[in-house]
Parts: sequence; C-alpha cells; structure tokens
Amino acid sequence: MSFTIQNVFIPVDGGYETVDVQIEKDRITKIAPGLEMLGKVVDGNNKLLLPGFVNAHTHSSEMWQRGLIPPVPLELWIAELYDFAPLDPEQVYLSALGTAVETLLSGGTSVVDHLVLIPGKEIETVAAAVKAYQEIGIRAFIGPLIQDQALASGIPTGEVQREATPYFRSTQATLELMQEVVAQFHSPEAGVHILVAPTGIQLCSDALFAGCIELSDRYNLCRHAHLLETKAQKQLAQEKYGCSAVEHLKRIGYLSDRTSLAHCVWLSDADIAILAETQSTVVHNPLSNLRLGSGIAPILKYCQAGVNVSFGCDGSASNDSQDLLEAIKIGSMLHNITDFDYRHWITPRQSVEMAAFGGAKGLNMAEELGSLTKGKKADLVLYDLTSLSLLPRTDPIGLLILGRPTQAVNSVWVNGRQIVDNGEVATVDVDELRHNLFERSQWDFNRQSKTVGEIEAHYREVMGLGLAKEYS
Amino acid sequence: MSFTIQNVFIPVDGGYETVDVQIEKDRITKIAPGLEMLGKVVDGNNKLLLPGFVNAHTHSSEMWQRGLIPPVPLELWIAELYDFAPLDPEQVYLSALGTAVETLLSGGTSVVDHLVLIPGKEIETVAAAVKAYQEIGIRAFIGPLIQDQALASGIPTGEVQREATPYFRSTQATLELMQEVVAQFHSPEAGVHILVAPTGIQLCSDALFAGCIELSDRYNLCRHAHLLETKAQKQLAQEKYGCSAVEHLKRIGYLSDRTSLAHCVWLSDADIAILAETQSTVVHNPLSNLRLGSGIAPILKYCQAGVNVSFGCDGSASNDSQDLLEAIKIGSMLHNITDFDYRHWITPRQSVEMAAFGGAKGLNMAEELGSLTKGKKADLVLYDLTSLSLLPRTDPIGLLILGRPTQAVNSVWVNGRQIVDNGEVATVDVDELRHNLFERSQWDFNRQSKTVGEIEAHYREVMGLGLAKEYS
Repeated sequence: MSFTIQNVFIPVDGGYETVDVQIEKDRITKIAPGLEMLGKVVDGNNKLLLPGFVNAHTHSSEMWQRGLIPPVPLELWIAELYDFAPLDPEQVYLSALGTAVETLLSGGTSVVDHLVLIPGKEIETVAAAVKAYQEIGIRAFIGPLIQDQALASGIPTGEVQREATPYFRSTQATLELMQEVVAQFHSPEAGVHILVAPTGIQLCSDALFAGCIELSDRYNLCRHAHLLETKAQKQLAQEKYGCSAVEHLKRIGYLSDRTSLAHCVWLSDADIAILAETQSTVVHNPLSNLRLGSGIAPILKYCQAGVNVSFGCDGSASNDSQDLLEAIKIGSMLHNITDFDYRHWITPRQSVEMAAFGGAKGLNMAEELGSLTKGKKADLVLYDLTSLSLLPRTDPIGLLILGRPTQAVNSVWVNGRQIVDNGEVATVDVDELRHNLFERSQWDFNRQSKTVGEIEAHYREVMGLGLAKEYS
Repeated sequence: MSFTIQNVFIPVDGGYETVDVQIEKDRITKIAPGLEMLGKVVDGNNKLLLPGFVNAHTHSSEMWQRGLIPPVPLELWIAELYDFAPLDPEQVYLSALGTAVETLLSGGTSVVDHLVLIPGKEIETVAAAVKAYQEIGIRAFIGPLIQDQALASGIPTGEVQREATPYFRSTQATLELMQEVVAQFHSPEAGVHILVAPTGIQLCSDALFAGCIELSDRYNLCRHAHLLETKAQKQLAQEKYGCSAVEHLKRIGYLSDRTSLAHCVWLSDADIAILAETQSTVVHNPLSNLRLGSGIAPILKYCQAGVNVSFGCDGSASNDSQDLLEAIKIGSMLHNITDFDYRHWITPRQSVEMAAFGGAKGLNMAEELGSLTKGKKADLVLYDLTSLSLLPRTDPIGLLILGRPTQAVNSVWVNGRQIVDNGEVATVDVDELRHNLFERSQWDFNRQSKTVGEIEAHYREVMGLGLAKEYS
C-alpha cells in the first residue's frame, strides 16, 4: 500500500518544483527530489499534484432534479424541490455516487453532504449515502438536514409577531434521530464523519440548535448550517429575533472553529466581525447564489477580515452540477466586480488554498488534510497538464483555476487509496451508474409545483415585487 | 452528401418532439416524424439536436497566454498581453485550431475571431487563421483587430483636452490593409467572412471608423468592435467626445443591424435605446467581464429594450477557456442578482435562442443560420443525453444550460459537413495539435511585464485607487 509519485510538479513559494512524493499507507511520508522509489511508481511527468479540494456544501439527492427547476428565487425553488423530492433510498445511493464521481473528477477528495432525509426513512437515507461514499472511497462528511418548523415558516410575513408552522417531527424526536445517526455511522477512521446540520435559522428553533450544540460537544462533531442565503432570510431573522441571524447564532453558542456556514450572502460588517471572532468558516456557493438570484457573498471582505472561506457546489438542483473547479473559478473571479482595487482580488493560488486548506479547516481537519505536507493524509489529486484544456504550457495553477479543465484529472487518492486512475473512477462502475440514473428517470418538461402555486402571490407581496397580472 | 438524423429530440413550443431531420448538401430539407431515410442514417435516440451556437467574440491567439496574466483590470491586463503577444503566424494557426476545437466541443459552429495582427505580418496572420478554420471546417468570421492610436491612449488622463498617442501604422495604411484582406480572404460561400473590426473608441480615430463604414458598405461586411468594456472607457469617451461612446458611434454612423459590439458593460439607459433603435447587437462576454473586474453588462435591460444579444467566450487570456456552454451558463444566470423580479430572468430556452439565433442575427445571417428550420444551413450540434453530466433524465435544455456538460457533444455539422463524430473532431488531428501546443510553449511562472510597470501608477491615480506603498 505504498507508492511514489515521481517527477511531479508541486507548487512552492514563487513557482513550482519537480519532486518525488512518497506515500505509505494513508499518509504522505516524504516530499523531495531524488527519493528512492518505494512501492508502485506513478509517473508524474507533465503532471501537477495538489491536495484534494473539499466540496464543502452540497445536497446529493438534488441530482434527481437538476436542470429542471426554472430560474426562481430560493423560497419558491425550495417549494418545488420538496414537492418532487426522491422518496427511495436507492435513489439517494445513486445520486450520492453521482455527486462523488463529479466531485472526484473535478479535484475534490472530500464532500460535505447536507443530506435531505426521506420522511419515515431517515436512517435508511443516511445508510444509503454512507454506502455510496464508502464504496467509491471519497471522504464523506454527512450532515443530515434537520429542521423543526415547516417550509412556510421560512418566508417573512412582514409582521414582527410570528408563529412557526409546526413540522411533522418534533424537536425531541429529531435530536434522538441524530443521536442514532451518530451512533450508527460516525466513523472518522473509516472516512465517514457525521455533522450536526440544522438547515438554518429560517426553519429551526433555538431548542433544535441547542440540542445540536450538545451533540457536537459530546461527540466532537462539526457543525454546519445554511446562513443568510437570501434577502428574505435577513428580513426573517429580524422578524424572529429582532437582531441579525449571526448575532443570534453567536448568542446561542452555535458559532465555533468547527462551524461551517453555507452561503453567507447577506451579512453586515458587524456580522463579519462575529464570524472572524468565533473562527467560523464561510462556505461559498457562487453558482447557486447566482442561479437563485441570492446575491454575491462578500468574500473579499471575509478574506480581509481573516474569516476562513471554502467552496461548495451546493445541490445539483441549484447549480446544476457538481463540478468543483467550476465553483472555484466562478467563486474566485466573481468578486473582481465588487471591488475596483484589483490588489484585493483572489489569485489562482489563493483559490487553491481556500479550496483545499480552507475546506479542511472548516471541517476541523487542518492538521490532517488540505496541504502537501509530510505526515498529512494522502488525499491527493494529480492533474494531466497535457490535456488540451490546459495547453499551451503557461502557469499550471492559472490554467486549472481560470480555465475550464476537461478530462484533466488523471489520478485521485483518498487516504492513500487510489480512487481515480488514468481519468477513470476505479472503485465503482460509472457506466452502470449512468445506466441506473437513466433507467430510474424520465424526461420531464412541464411539471407543475402545487406549493409554488400556493405561495407565490404571498412571496411576491412580502418581497415587494408587486402582484403580476395572473393574481390580480 | 445527404444524411438523415433519426428519432432525435428537438425543442418545440412547450416541450420537445421526436423527429427525423433530413439534410441535403449544405441545408436542412425536412423536419418531421417518420421521414424516409435519405443517405447516411444518424442515430438520434437519446440525443438532442440544436442549431449551432455562435462564439460571437474571441481573440484566438490569446490562447498562448491563457492562465498566465494575474487578476488585474483590462487596462493593465492588455499591456501585459501585448508585451508577450505571439509573433509567429504558425502560432496563430495553432491557436485558431485550438479555439475552434473548444468551440465545437461546447456547441459552437461559428466563431467570430477579433484577430490580433502580428505587426509586419498582417496578411500572414489572417492567412494562418483562415487556413486553420477552413481545415477544421468551423464557420469563421474574422475581424482583423485594427487601431490607429497607441495603447497608452486607451487610459483616461483626467483632462478634457487630450492628444492621441500615434500608432506605428497610419490610418490610411490600415484601411489599405483591410482592403487587401477583404480582397484575399472574404469568401462567405467558402465559410470565411471578413468583418471590419476597429478595436473600439479607446484606440481608434473617427477617420478609421469612417473608412471601415465605407468598406462595410462597399463589400456588405459586418461591423464589429469592443464597446464600453470598462469604467475607464466610459470616462475616456467623455474626455474624447464630450458625450457617451454610443452617442458618438451613432453620430458617425457605425451602428447598424449588422454591427455587433462586444461587452457593452457601461451603457446608460439612453445608450441602450440607441442600440435598440439602430438594431445593433450586444455580444455578452460574461467571463472576461468578471475576470477583468469590468462589471456586469445590463443584459436584462437589453432584452427588455429589444436589443439583440449573443454570447462570446472572449480571448483565452481573459477567461481562460473557449467553452461556449460555460459562457452561456454564467452569462445567463449572472443577471439573476441584478433584478429581484425573477420573472425577468433568462430561462434556459431563451439562452439557447440568444446563443444560436441571436448570434446569427448579429452577423446578418438570421435568414441562413440560428434555428432548426427547413431551408436553413445545416450548422447543427447533436448532444448525447446519456453523458453522466446530463443525467438523470429531466429537461434536456435545462441540463445543458444550467449544468456543466462534459463530453456531451456527440456530433457537429457545419454547412452539412460533419466536423465532430462520436465526440471526436474528425477533420484535424487533435493529438497532433496538443503535441504542437505543448512543444511550442514552456512553463512560465514569473514573467514581468515592462509596460504594466510603467503605467500602473498612472492607472491607479486616474482611477482613484490611490497609490500603494510601492509607489509612494
């Protein structure tokens, strides 16, 4: 189980070096030129080795609805999403595999799956995702998506007084479910980590957050949630708490150095200072923020404030892909239009650092993952620099981040195990996966969401969009 | 030279239909279910047929510098670009091939190459690009990039009175050169169109524009130019003309229904009305506008005003790819953050219309190209809907536009000739192209641009960015 990558480019201060990289079992043991060849020799010529990136926020089972939901904002989009959510754990298994394949072939070695649970089959849902991730061999961080208020509670009312719409499962039952999920599946040494992951302030009570904090402390679990993805959520936080969502989360103790927060679009400067102070991580999902019209997260401000930032694809129904390199490219250059001073812009090297080390740090794994460092876990990606999309030869990382790499990932190792070999996934049969995804779906062009029909007029009114003709 | 695509999905109002499509010589002759099989039969099962898209603005030879220029605004970026521009027509040939390959494999059948000319080898430059495009078989619109003022003239001075820095070639000599290019290369029936393409108001005199208008009228040539890509250019137009660039271009007669204008980021509502009135086309280059921090072009306003819009990748040094589907995806969803009313957002079907028909219209080819219509030219792209990136089955166009298709283009025909077959370019040897791009380049990490060093302090001062420590 040892191997040596010979004559491979790695980034160093001011440029690149050609080195040999020795891996024993699950760890990087040596990085230097001219090493003895230990175990299998991997040809690194004209290839670039980077630490694996983290797909730091996704919802794998959304893959069943990708390409399907029209361009509408989150509050309507999610109503349609839930009207048609998959109900069979076998689907969850397949879409977790699909999510992992796309992540691996775009530079990711870890995935954070904020996993939508099938009502009544919650444990089976988690089991299906765990099975998929263990079979393919990606490092998995699974945060079962929990809430204790119904979807309608997530839209502001325009009133200061508001009552949460009850959810079908009680807060207590949800916390007991999480306890069971941790007991059955949390197994970091096997590459499966369970996160506490209440969906966000828009659909969760303080009691649910408190229970999650307690579980997190007891089992040393990372914490995850959506945070201020939309303007509507900012308005909602004021209605619910009379303060910003970030202030509230700080007050109840949810923020910490192992808390990662997806989106963070609508934060004030004071909120940003709180994230820095609590050492929380922002997960930037640029593509879903554009697709849903949520806005541009103030990532340059986060960087300047010293807030850790990582990248996520978000679920495939709001992106609609799990190509992590695409999320990194757009999530880096998007901010150039928010600050005229180009000296604040994110460079390709900084993007790589955010995607790898930033991702690891947000999962409390900075000691183990996220850089090419002797002693760290061998979660590695080898890029073929002779791919047409990375030619002519210029700056490998510039080409990788600013370009549009296709078929550029040659090999991927997770925990020292080879998952991708010569551009092909070696652990699962991708043709069979394609066949299964094809057979279990059908062309679907004109479906109508019942819930969107019910809530759209209210949404437009509260958000000041005016009533369109069909409602007057 | 006849063929029939059997049982293929095509988009129709409200959904899709499965039809047969008959092509004779260069044209679509029949579209209907149950046709007799004329000539070679192409299996259309589980495939989607669309009209070819137009990569409506690029600079092919920038490919030699992709991935290389750091994140800086246009005025500094272009200084570095020109310091290291390729000087060998053989390089122009290779990068034109590379541009065509990436365009074809991402749904494009036409390319508008705003071609940077090698000083002293202008005709050879155009000949090299023409050779490449004819060999590979993509429909080519070549606009030799001309100017008659030196690069330094493109940065505002902060003064109302300004004098243009002279250029090495006179206005008259440049127009004579264009005349020669038209005489030698303009050959629409062979798939090569020459455009008049002054780079833009920032580096061109009114005399140069006037000469281009005259050539355009005499030979029925389309007109192309950059327009208001940056805030600096908006400021510059006021300094030069005392009015907006659009007002000036209208006054001198450059705007018309065969004029396409790249970028159009900094236009006022009055400017937009002028584009609508003159039936000019906007070429949206969302990725370079982000990469260079130029801004977000007000595309939703253009659509609402009835201005024709198409998509371009822009040159590979400012993107850094020629993946047209990426430009279409980002160029569509980017605008969702500019208008809270989602009913104005661009749908995937509208994106396809803009990329195909909008592109054709901007090149005065709406009668011949841009839709699946009997009698039109057979510029067609067949997408494989069993690609993992387009699964599970949902809405084919939604998947194509909102997703991140990889290896999804199965076949491409231009003018009825098959260019891509089973995902591989059939007309040129792509492995040989990769080999040549590799051999003629070298890894390049730490080059320094002399010109950027000379102009950066001035740029920062005029743009109000303040002098950074290194200049104080």
